[in-house]
Amino acid sequence: MNYINLDNISFTPLLPEVKQVMTEAVNSDLHNPSSQHKAGEKSAEIISDARQAVAGLINAANPRETVFTSCGTESVNHAIKGAALANREKGNHIITTNIEHNSVLRSIKRFSSQGFKVTSLPVDASGRVDPKAVQDAITDQTILVSVMHSNNETGTIQPVEEIGRITRKNKVLFHSDAVDSVGVVPVDVEKLNVDLLSFGSNQYGGPPGAGGLYIRRGTRIFPLLDGGVQENNKRAGTENLICITGMAKAAELAAKHMKERLVRLGEIKDYLVGKLPGYIDEYIVNTNLEHSLPNLLNISLKYIEGESVMLMLDEDNMAVSTKSACATGSLRASHVLLSLGLSHADAQGTVVISWSIDNTLEDIDKFLASLSGVVKTLRSMSPLYNKPGT
Amino acid sequence: MNYINLDNISFTPLLPEVKQVMTEAVNSDLHNPSSQHKAGEKSAEIISDARQAVAGLINAANPRETVFTSCGTESVNHAIKGAALANREKGNHIITTNIEHNSVLRSIKRFSSQGFKVTSLPVDASGRVDPKAVQDAITDQTILVSVMHSNNETGTIQPVEEIGRITRKNKVLFHSDAVDSVGVVPVDVEKLNVDLLSFGSNQYGGPPGAGGLYIRRGTRIFPLLDGGVQENNKRAGTENLICITGMAKAAELAAKHMKERLVRLGEIKDYLVGKLPGYIDEYIVNTNLEHSLPNLLNISLKYIEGESVMLMLDEDNMAVSTKSACATGSLRASHVLLSLGLSHADAQGTVVISWSIDNTLEDIDKFLASLSGVVKTLRSMSPLYNKPGT
Repeated sequence: MNYINLDNISFTPLLPEVKQVMTEAVNSDLHNPSSQHKAGEKSAEIISDARQAVAGLINAANPRETVFTSCGTESVNHAIKGAALANREKGNHIITTNIEHNSVLRSIKRFSSQGFKVTSLPVDASGRVDPKAVQDAITDQTILVSVMHSNNETGTIQPVEEIGRITRKNKVLFHSDAVDSVGVVPVDVEKLNVDLLSFGSNQYGGPPGAGGLYIRRGTRIFPLLDGGVQENNKRAGTENLICITGMAKAAELAAKHMKERLVRLGEIKDYLVGKLPGYIDEYIVNTNLEHSLPNLLNISLKYIEGESVMLMLDEDNMAVSTKSACATGSLRASHVLLSLGLSHADAQGTVVISWSIDNTLEDIDKFLASLSGVVKTLRSMSPLYNKPGT
Repeated sequence: MNYINLDNISFTPLLPEVKQVMTEAVNSDLHNPSSQHKAGEKSAEIISDARQAVAGLINAANPRETVFTSCGTESVNHAIKGAALANREKGNHIITTNIEHNSVLRSIKRFSSQGFKVTSLPVDASGRVDPKAVQDAITDQTILVSVMHSNNETGTIQPVEEIGRITRKNKVLFHSDAVDSVGVVPVDVEKLNVDLLSFGSNQYGGPPGAGGLYIRRGTRIFPLLDGGVQENNKRAGTENLICITGMAKAAELAAKHMKERLVRLGEIKDYLVGKLPGYIDEYIVNTNLEHSLPNLLNISLKYIEGESVMLMLDEDNMAVSTKSACATGSLRASHVLLSLGLSHADAQGTVVISWSIDNTLEDIDKFLASLSGVVKTLRSMSPLYNKPGT
């Protein structure tokens, strides 16, 4: 069965080189890196090398500024809960946006009963936050601003660098959820002026089970996982060497091949966007084509349901998604799309197409042909759809 | 180099069968289990099967009562912080013991500024908590009792079943940190009357990077990782399928081979304890030999430092530890040993010997011969040691 994966945002296969180093790690009896005898030293070195590779990918000045976590979600929870609690005495105000991932929104909400006040900024119709709105929202009580780097549903990239200049000027901590950006597009913690940056590993060919949190030196933050002294006392728990090894290899390759991957992914995007109107009509492009990831396109198909489209495409052996895999099972329309101004009905017609360097233009052709048929079939059954000319 | 690992408490090698399933998982492009298309279904099934295997090991009535985490430390943080915050309106009193792992002690401490009151119970000279002391400490404000199943430094097993009867009777939530017990000795959540039970995977031949938290149905608890709807809405973050697969295989094998492993490990323990006096004198056994894990012995060697013993044994190609690997770098004497009534000097002389089914009696012979020489050398240099007869 030739299955075409256009749901890379939910699942990017491990890179062959990542599979290799992880297979080796699984089979090489790596000792606890915290142990002080010979057997532990080799493992400590592996972690140190991994931290170097990851620092290279995000341009961290010091590798020790990155803490390894179990996933992007843990990084985000650590950043928000850890920074909010550690700076509680300075103030109680947090600024975020309406389109953040649930890991951000729910981490903030967890504290809403504990005296924290939240300002959630809107986005414009193109899906971007206005940096000026961040400036206007800052008060003397503001301790944290959290704005994502790219949105996981639309791929739209936010003006993080401009926001970073504002937070820096106002001496407010700035966290950016860059889970869908790091390893895909250039992310430079120095240029962005972030104090905290969350990222994963499985968005660029590393394993789920490994993530990172960049913590700028001197940033006041509590651990999320209290206990042992691992990770320079910032994240307790025996280190997951197997997945960290895979993450480091993926980071190394992402940095090395960034340019050529961007070109390749961008070609697929241009091809898809250019061809779409020849196959379907009455759709909305929810991705900001000027500022967005090169590997994702979000469209809403009028009069039909994205979920039905996804299931019918699955029958044709191709995977797309309708929203964040993290929101599977939720029947509600995406908060991100509603924030863009879409109606509930249009938001329900959403399909997210996401590719990797392993996809070909032929995959896109097959997808478009299949999509065209699926849309016709579903619209023919849709009570909302008035056929033109009838 | 033939390296003898008697530091299994820090590091137990992956079982061959675990290596095999993890190698397969690394190389088989397992899709995101939350995706709803065909590719995601297989992964969802793998997680469901894994949950079944783990439920079998701890005798959980319903597999869905176990949440997969990234490690034992995350499980403990989730249990304590999640239960304390979720039940804050019922009361503010937490009961624990003086000998808990730092993941428990520091998780509780994290909240001390937020109006929680803590009673920390002592242990007797044999290292055990008196269940009656738990009963006496319970007030109408008590919302959580946390007592470990076995101690990670001494291996001493606590009267968890009796404590569970008391907490059940008093309708107080009961968490047990069973990270060093599950997979090694029988742990039955029904028999123990626990509401929450933390465990890992790497203590019984599974990988670091996978742990579990048993949450009895109906227990009020918040997630530690907020975000997506994974793990029945109890733990957000893309599932670490590779490590979960390894954990499940280790759990299956632990349950299957529990009896024979207990016999084998117990033989090694009896052999070691019986032979020790023939090789060294003036030492204290800190392990409660009647109630303890079968794979660990903690002794304090008078007049010398455990750290020097560990380093010299390392030169002889054998690994032991001096305390929890999680406390590496801390120069303070173990809080566990001080709680047993040891002096600071004696506590500093501690060596933890821990073995697996892969160790042989010959390993123990080699260790004893080596230890005997090391102790003689170190005591000959020790200003604290008055040689007999001089």
